[in-house]
Amino acid sequence: MDPRIIAINERVKSIRNVIAVVSGKGGVGKSIISTIMALQLSRMGYKVGLLDTDFTSPSTHIILNAEELTPKEDRGVIPPEIHGLKYMTITYYTKNNPTPLRGIDVSNALIEILSITRWGDLDYLIIDAPPGISDIILDLLRINWRIKFIVVATPSKLALETVRKLIKLLEEQGGDIIGIIVNMVMGIVTTEYRGLGKRVLVEIPFQQDLEDKIGDVEELLESMIGRKVEEALKLIVEESP
Amino acid sequence: MDPRIIAINERVKSIRNVIAVVSGKGGVGKSIISTIMALQLSRMGYKVGLLDTDFTSPSTHIILNAEELTPKEDRGVIPPEIHGLKYMTITYYTKNNPTPLRGIDVSNALIEILSITRWGDLDYLIIDAPPGISDIILDLLRINWRIKFIVVATPSKLALETVRKLIKLLEEQGGDIIGIIVNMVMGIVTTEYRGLGKRVLVEIPFQQDLEDKIGDVEELLESMIGRKVEEALKLIVEESP
Repeated sequence: MDPRIIAINERVKSIRNVIAVVSGKGGVGKSIISTIMALQLSRMGYKVGLLDTDFTSPSTHIILNAEELTPKEDRGVIPPEIHGLKYMTITYYTKNNPTPLRGIDVSNALIEILSITRWGDLDYLIIDAPPGISDIILDLLRINWRIKFIVVATPSKLALETVRKLIKLLEEQGGDIIGIIVNMVMGIVTTEYRGLGKRVLVEIPFQQDLEDKIGDVEELLESMIGRKVEEALKLIVEESP
Repeated sequence: MDPRIIAINERVKSIRNVIAVVSGKGGVGKSIISTIMALQLSRMGYKVGLLDTDFTSPSTHIILNAEELTPKEDRGVIPPEIHGLKYMTITYYTKNNPTPLRGIDVSNALIEILSITRWGDLDYLIIDAPPGISDIILDLLRINWRIKFIVVATPSKLALETVRKLIKLLEEQGGDIIGIIVNMVMGIVTTEYRGLGKRVLVEIPFQQDLEDKIGDVEELLESMIGRKVEEALKLIVEESP
């Protein structure tokens, strides 16, 4: 076993719940939904961390307007706080440069970040995972923690097939799936997702003015997508230890 | 040098132009645009191949309604023809199963497919690349062929930063960028993309009924996105050898 995994297992002992937000395809709103989820949980009074593991195209720092943050080092890295969240992202280190990480490096970056980060006591760690079936997802499953998955999807033929595959993979690997959030619904019936044997937590209508809310946390939480994610969260929180 | 790369260089000698369709984020319409591009070029009378390299979430087979195709083997693999295209996709081999490929396997899958495929004479090979800065893009740049890149983006703050990074990476690696296609434009001014020093080939308005056209090639080509991609293609064809 990679000795860093042992170190990680030690570091994450004080995290009660880990929720990885995953998607079959990109561009379905996964980063926005995971960021909102972390923010809402924090407002509910929980101690919350947010980790962006979409290393090749991170975007949570733009949603949080966190481009100026820098972490402190003290026997590891202390995640900076923003809007009440402990927040970690690779952009602290890469700034605006491209990160042409090959698969093995992506995997290393995750293991590296998790081995150095001192989350401390957390009720929830929300992970924004890269889209698709990636090394990151396989790695998240190697760590000894209470991880569950939320799948974000859109009502599109192209999305449905990748979601079906993702769910199959997660189940084959023993992943625990909380449910599906269907985003960008435009009056199209999304019964397909009800056929996958997983609970649909919430359906979020397409929000045309979403672009204007990016970078403004208050407005984002008050907007329709903010309220819909909160609905889903209430279901999740009830079931969490 | 990987001996398979030498074999690939031999196999691809008879391809005059290679265009890889890339994107910063997923879900921007890259697969639809690359498929339309291949179909339109074929209608213009060119010999065209289409290769789906988005191995973990392929979708061109759904757009082409090509789920029943199977390739023949004869001193390599002969790509099956559909709608006038020579078409290769990993779904011939994986069917509807998830492909939890780690980075190195993704890279191997590309090298493997390219070493076995007998494209024969082609005027254009269109490659649907995975979103983001991936192993696939780094590998495509290792092959000795005339490859150019088209970047597909949407007018979103989250997309813009990843596109900037992708362009920077491609340029650092010596990649030749034809231009940017801005998709899903909803009345938002997309002047940002004009600031990246790359030509905007075409702006495609958001097409609400696109979902209904998926799997029906004729309707897709006649629809707004089909006609807009054709506009961009005319520019590209004029400049191709």
